[in-house]
Amino acid sequence: MDKQVIGILGGGQLGRMFIEAAGRMNIEVRVLDPTKQSPAKQISSFVSHIDEPFTSSEAIKKLAQECDVLTVEIEHVNCDELAAVEKLGLAKVRPSSSTVRLIQDKYLQKCYLEEHNLSLPEYVKCDTLEEAQDAGRRFGYPFVLKCRLGAYDGRGNYVVKSESDVASGFEFLGCKMLYAEKFVPFVKELAVMVVRRPSGQVATYPVVETVQRDNICELVYAPAQIDGQVRGLAMKVATDTISCLPEGSAGIFGVEMFLHRDGKTVVVNEIAPRPHNSGHYTIEACSTSQFENHLRAVLDLPLGDTSLKVPAAAMINVLGGSNGFDSVLDPCLASLDVAGATVHLYGKADAKPGRKMGHITVVADSALQLRRRTDMIVGKLANASDEERQRLAYRQSALVAENGSVSDEEKEDVKAMSPLVGIIMGSDSDLPTMRPAAQLLEQFGVPFELTIVSAHRTPDRMFEYARAAHKRGLKVIIAGAGGAAHLPGMVAALTPLPVVGVPVKGRCLDGVDSLHSIVQMPRGVPVATVAINNSDNAALLAVRIIGSSCPTYLDAMQQYMDDMRTGVEKKIERLDITGWKDY
Amino acid sequence: MDKQVIGILGGGQLGRMFIEAAGRMNIEVRVLDPTKQSPAKQISSFVSHIDEPFTSSEAIKKLAQECDVLTVEIEHVNCDELAAVEKLGLAKVRPSSSTVRLIQDKYLQKCYLEEHNLSLPEYVKCDTLEEAQDAGRRFGYPFVLKCRLGAYDGRGNYVVKSESDVASGFEFLGCKMLYAEKFVPFVKELAVMVVRRPSGQVATYPVVETVQRDNICELVYAPAQIDGQVRGLAMKVATDTISCLPEGSAGIFGVEMFLHRDGKTVVVNEIAPRPHNSGHYTIEACSTSQFENHLRAVLDLPLGDTSLKVPAAAMINVLGGSNGFDSVLDPCLASLDVAGATVHLYGKADAKPGRKMGHITVVADSALQLRRRTDMIVGKLANASDEERQRLAYRQSALVAENGSVSDEEKEDVKAMSPLVGIIMGSDSDLPTMRPAAQLLEQFGVPFELTIVSAHRTPDRMFEYARAAHKRGLKVIIAGAGGAAHLPGMVAALTPLPVVGVPVKGRCLDGVDSLHSIVQMPRGVPVATVAINNSDNAALLAVRIIGSSCPTYLDAMQQYMDDMRTGVEKKIERLDITGWKDY
Repeated sequence: MDKQVIGILGGGQLGRMFIEAAGRMNIEVRVLDPTKQSPAKQISSFVSHIDEPFTSSEAIKKLAQECDVLTVEIEHVNCDELAAVEKLGLAKVRPSSSTVRLIQDKYLQKCYLEEHNLSLPEYVKCDTLEEAQDAGRRFGYPFVLKCRLGAYDGRGNYVVKSESDVASGFEFLGCKMLYAEKFVPFVKELAVMVVRRPSGQVATYPVVETVQRDNICELVYAPAQIDGQVRGLAMKVATDTISCLPEGSAGIFGVEMFLHRDGKTVVVNEIAPRPHNSGHYTIEACSTSQFENHLRAVLDLPLGDTSLKVPAAAMINVLGGSNGFDSVLDPCLASLDVAGATVHLYGKADAKPGRKMGHITVVADSALQLRRRTDMIVGKLANASDEERQRLAYRQSALVAENGSVSDEEKEDVKAMSPLVGIIMGSDSDLPTMRPAAQLLEQFGVPFELTIVSAHRTPDRMFEYARAAHKRGLKVIIAGAGGAAHLPGMVAALTPLPVVGVPVKGRCLDGVDSLHSIVQMPRGVPVATVAINNSDNAALLAVRIIGSSCPTYLDAMQQYMDDMRTGVEKKIERLDITGWKDY
Repeated sequence: MDKQVIGILGGGQLGRMFIEAAGRMNIEVRVLDPTKQSPAKQISSFVSHIDEPFTSSEAIKKLAQECDVLTVEIEHVNCDELAAVEKLGLAKVRPSSSTVRLIQDKYLQKCYLEEHNLSLPEYVKCDTLEEAQDAGRRFGYPFVLKCRLGAYDGRGNYVVKSESDVASGFEFLGCKMLYAEKFVPFVKELAVMVVRRPSGQVATYPVVETVQRDNICELVYAPAQIDGQVRGLAMKVATDTISCLPEGSAGIFGVEMFLHRDGKTVVVNEIAPRPHNSGHYTIEACSTSQFENHLRAVLDLPLGDTSLKVPAAAMINVLGGSNGFDSVLDPCLASLDVAGATVHLYGKADAKPGRKMGHITVVADSALQLRRRTDMIVGKLANASDEERQRLAYRQSALVAENGSVSDEEKEDVKAMSPLVGIIMGSDSDLPTMRPAAQLLEQFGVPFELTIVSAHRTPDRMFEYARAAHKRGLKVIIAGAGGAAHLPGMVAALTPLPVVGVPVKGRCLDGVDSLHSIVQMPRGVPVATVAINNSDNAALLAVRIIGSSCPTYLDAMQQYMDDMRTGVEKKIERLDITGWKDY
């Protein structure tokens, strides 16, 4: 689709998946990598690659002479040579050498982002042991000592626990080119991929949550199960971060962030000028993958749609373990029985412990189904603890029927998921009436939130709540109200979402006042009204609404209806046996 | 993931996409194809392929000696040699030589399927011109003369228009190994991929609609926009067809079918013992692609989930045209601007007219969005007529904003889509009350159906309708009823879908009887009740329900609400200007 030939520095799994995307568009890619059978080279034939280090000046120059555009799948490359290529006009370099150089040095990266008003953890340069000790006094303990250059997958980091630990850390990291960073008390690690065209135009992927084990990314959940306001903030931070990079910063970028314990603050951890492990899920889960968008960006083609095409996805890294290649095969073979799972193995021969050998993507119709599917694989990972294996083995056996009823353990998981239903009521006096709705949603494993929003006492809050609801990820709002009962109708006037109204019975008029006030909405703004005081039915309606596009919950509703029938059948039997007199 | 090496006869685009799937699982595939740089060979390096015809006995034997399993990407192979490989135990052959042989000869294929009670168009063998003439007398005109062997993409078929045309057809097809088939007056061509393990276990993909131009598949829509009952029937026919094949029939199979003009009968047209053009959409749109499932089947691994992971998908074939490679590039470049589109080019050098050079998959959140996205590409195809180009160019310009309002032309398209909403009412006397719901759904571009279902006069029909609704693809049911008004509640008791109830005002009690009867449902079975006689709001609620998981309709609802506001603002202005006396 483009006659330009691309040269890529580095031929590992990122290069491999990049070539996969390029292959589909018949775009020629030449790889510079010292390994003859590197992962990327395995899937492109009839093209001559260069079997030299991607730090070699000569090899980079040779690659540039054979290609129209150079790009990278790793930032630890020879930037001087890339700059020379740019200067001589041998090939376009995307992202530019200066961008790669800036990101290569994590201290310079931080200075640059700080200058551009991005929110970062506090940091300070440590060229000497004394500076590192000063940092400890300034930041408190624990704090983190980091190498400015060459760090990845947790290597090059040292968590300093106390004053007496500073010297060991300083020495452990090789005593040079270090910086210190204040420890961020985070609740989640977030990441966002951002793609940028040479013109500076950017497109931003969804916010994902990354879960690390031993400093290596183990799991990625998309979208991150966080409140929509925070999600919006994280997207903005990521977009701003990549937008502020110098001219010539074309390509895909990964932005890693911390969500502070306060639940509101998002700070940038670091960026990567290339496809990123936290973006692998995009291959199966987004309209256009990070790899194809990187390709489009470096060729200056229109950017592809970055949105999720499935409701939920996860990425599980498959690492080498103590059992060599068997450690790799275990989770992959397990995934063959998991609906929605796709294996990606990178063609690496040597499965040494901790090495990224492949990944598995899982897609699902809901966060609940995703958790169920993912758990069936995670218990088989090489580095899963015995406790975990046991716990997940139990879960797996309980999940033979994928859409079984929700266990107590799962209910805890669901609490941490982004709410799909918002239950609101005008006053805490309505809680006894609305509580059954909450109980039913919990029983169905539907993530929800419950709060007080009063049309008459907190009108501003009502406006805010209703206007933001669909942006925050809610799919249905259940509103309970009594008497004049304006809440459901007013909320419906402010949101495009379906609103379910529960007429709460007051002291007079038997709730008919609430019913009529809620149901008799003018043409144009509907409220789905249920029976007086019947919040159970509001919750069941919410489940049906979500289920109409989500088989997991549709099946659960069918099961619920079957159970109701069985319940009555038992009563029939008991009535038959006991007789009506003694029943 | 499996140490077995696979040998594939044929190295075209099907082999290429097969190797893509195998590459991800690090499974070695060797290709037998006469072309040195055939599409499949381009994306697999470090493996020695065989550059010989896939009909060559020697080459097949050599391949078998190097591999554990042989499979095919084309059925026109040397079956004798495959049988010899089986007999000598050189390699497993999947599907078996006898299955390939059976399918290779379309006449034998038909005899076999007929023996197994599958519904087929009438057919008869024609070894001589006299037999062909007899066929014409028996079947009437037009009828179709077909080659038993070697036919594909419409080649080897001749539509005989009249008695005087029989001899030309007979001659055109080479006068030998022919059969005649009665012409099926079909409304749609359907196709289903079915994957089968060596054990005989099968998994069936969704039913798709294929659209041909000049006897070559141009478009595939998934799922087919047909009634769910027909969809179920087509799935059953496809499943039965592949299940009845002889033992050893492992791999993926394509089943092409006709949907008869009667709208109810589905007959098998033909089957393919390999990945099929009508299944390319599965790469982006299903949990496991047809290629990966073929791989799993021939290696006897667990089959992957065949369900759609997106609401709607289309596949557009990209053929060579009179402008050579530019004909190919035009639609591909256009697709870069279309959200949800993914290009697959096959790496073929020579873009001669009609040659399959690649395809474009489009995914979308609804059939409406899919049509909009697809139309932006179809107008650029090499073989689009001038009339089409013009029509679609207009549509494209009208669709700059992807989620714009629904044009009159689109409303016609929507009528042919599978209904998402069912509007039902107890009596035709309710139609005046329910008509506004239909008008609004039409305005929003929501496919719907409208019919009479009476709880009291047609209780059986009500049971059937409600029980089948979610299986037929409905997402919401709107039920209008007056007086005792049992319809909405009874339907809700029979379906897991959300049911919206419209209380219809009768001659007495002002509709309060209907309202209370509909809204006051017992705990366990909710009905979403709207205001008396307010079917507008029922439709708007249905749009909100569908929109809660489908951005196209959520955005449309937001737009509708904005328009309402603007409408009132205009009235405010007019009132201000005119004054309240003259307003």
